[in-house]
Amino acid sequence: MRAIVVTPGSEAPHVREIDRPDPDPGEALVRILRVGIDGTDHEVIAGGHGGYPEGASRLVLGHEAIGVVKDPNGSDLDAGQLVVPTVRRPVEGGPTDYFERGEPDMAPEGHYVERGIAGAHGFMAEYVTSPAEFLVPVPTALAETGFLIEPISNVEKALTLARASRSAFEWDPESAMVLGNGPLGLLAVGLLRAAGFDRVYCLGRRDRPDPTIDIVERLGATYVDSREDTLREIPDVHEPMDLVFEATGHAPHAFETIDLLAPNGVGALLGIPGDRSITLDGGRLHREFVLSNKALVGSVNSSVPHFRAAIDTLEAFPEWLAEDVITDVFAPDEVESAFETGDDRIKSVIEFDTL
Amino acid sequence: MRAIVVTPGSEAPHVREIDRPDPDPGEALVRILRVGIDGTDHEVIAGGHGGYPEGASRLVLGHEAIGVVKDPNGSDLDAGQLVVPTVRRPVEGGPTDYFERGEPDMAPEGHYVERGIAGAHGFMAEYVTSPAEFLVPVPTALAETGFLIEPISNVEKALTLARASRSAFEWDPESAMVLGNGPLGLLAVGLLRAAGFDRVYCLGRRDRPDPTIDIVERLGATYVDSREDTLREIPDVHEPMDLVFEATGHAPHAFETIDLLAPNGVGALLGIPGDRSITLDGGRLHREFVLSNKALVGSVNSSVPHFRAAIDTLEAFPEWLAEDVITDVFAPDEVESAFETGDDRIKSVIEFDTL
Repeated sequence: MRAIVVTPGSEAPHVREIDRPDPDPGEALVRILRVGIDGTDHEVIAGGHGGYPEGASRLVLGHEAIGVVKDPNGSDLDAGQLVVPTVRRPVEGGPTDYFERGEPDMAPEGHYVERGIAGAHGFMAEYVTSPAEFLVPVPTALAETGFLIEPISNVEKALTLARASRSAFEWDPESAMVLGNGPLGLLAVGLLRAAGFDRVYCLGRRDRPDPTIDIVERLGATYVDSREDTLREIPDVHEPMDLVFEATGHAPHAFETIDLLAPNGVGALLGIPGDRSITLDGGRLHREFVLSNKALVGSVNSSVPHFRAAIDTLEAFPEWLAEDVITDVFAPDEVESAFETGDDRIKSVIEFDTL
Repeated sequence: MRAIVVTPGSEAPHVREIDRPDPDPGEALVRILRVGIDGTDHEVIAGGHGGYPEGASRLVLGHEAIGVVKDPNGSDLDAGQLVVPTVRRPVEGGPTDYFERGEPDMAPEGHYVERGIAGAHGFMAEYVTSPAEFLVPVPTALAETGFLIEPISNVEKALTLARASRSAFEWDPESAMVLGNGPLGLLAVGLLRAAGFDRVYCLGRRDRPDPTIDIVERLGATYVDSREDTLREIPDVHEPMDLVFEATGHAPHAFETIDLLAPNGVGALLGIPGDRSITLDGGRLHREFVLSNKALVGSVNSSVPHFRAAIDTLEAFPEWLAEDVITDVFAPDEVESAFETGDDRIKSVIEFDTL
């Protein structure tokens, strides 16, 4: 069967013919339909993040997948059931406590591998196997868009942590801003609108006309150009934000989010920056953080409950949203084009098969 | 009656003879026993924080008080009941929603005055009045130490926010560090030990012999000299911390706390810094914050439930702790000495009367 792999020394992911996997006891065999491409894939390819499975000389890419159960192999799943696989798996022979409690997303480094990212093969292949417990059933209507459930689940988790951080008092957030108009940022805007936020803003640094700005505005959100207003100015120009999602990975944003927040507000950090020294008006930010009871939460990965919430969110999206976000669909053989980027592209996906 | 006031242009607080206040309907008259002095008082005196009541030419200082109900004035309180007053009060004619829901500590600026700090007279007087709802009943055994309930209540609130921020997943904190060995830091160490934390650390920058280090160690906690280990080194030298209280107001600490925390850990910021530009290894800190699901919460002030929790904590303290923390007791006439500071002093208190 065909799989998309990276190998040491290769500059780009490529198609390779590999053996179709056989499910172990407790595992199901899944026929993959679509696998999305995101920034993490590019980091894995560049070698800046993740790594090969132990002893392997290649890594099958892909962690945003949708597929169909081909062989339940004795599990509770039915053949033909649409499923999305979660990403984290236990380290062989390693600790499993976070998995047993259903919270692998909270496991510290060393407790997990991540399929398609670090230490385990991903889902960019015609068939994959997975323990049934890591396959989340998905309604059939989501066959073409369901690979977005994984990225949305990361936002769901961040929202869960953010809300929890404000659960010790009465908190009725009304305004929210997403920093970043990449695919994750746009999905976060959609999620916030679906979750009932009336006043949503999205920060980018692009000129009109631009397809991401069109999506932001079609969602009823307000596009804010970061080249016009600094984070500190935004509360005066627009309004202070009860909730902020940081989805750019631009390191100053993590700390300047304090300036954006309304009193009692929370910033959820999703973006992953590289090394960078920054100079901050740190005393003022620290003081403002304390005197206004603000909070910041870091959030990575997601577990089954977040995937379930993401399914509900994807179903609640206006129909055009996933269509507009998924700008480019490629066959596996078009892998080279699939990993290219550009301002006219939002989300690229590799289609291995259809329902 | 005697009160300790600051006046514009005066360099130091001084005793002034003022009229004994009459309680309005709903207010009780309280005979003050003791009022503690803390860093906020010094900031108010220096003019860097707070302000005079509207139209007043002086401010009665003091926000850490213990007193006895002299005249219940028709309220539910009994004469002779020991009470601690809370600090925040509604702005006259202003919004009262945060007060109505019992969360004045979460009210944004402009929604409150603070007695003895900003816009309202404090408790450093022989008698004060207060609405009965802001007087928290205290067991008689705490007559000498009860003025510590207010600072402890600030730590209780920070702990409540910190725990809430981790309530979306299973979190069993075992290690904790307090940054700062001032009075608030020492009370925080006592609180953590009383709350069942077995492994508690306290960061300071003092040489032995030192009374604060003795208290840290007598509490079964570990003193860490910040001149020997940076915050980033502490997890290797000691251990990563599930919970950190920042009680120094040193701006870099707010952000470097990320380095101190264990995965899924939370830093609660209590200290209030002045302006200061800082340079950070911001990309690494931001990345670590996200990839390890860490959190930071700012926390200011406290409400009645936190005062009640603080009463329980003060009662759970070993008997020697309050005695060792309260190093200096002054009569009102000794006000000049009372506001001096020094390495041999931990907590100074002005005693207006005894039970």
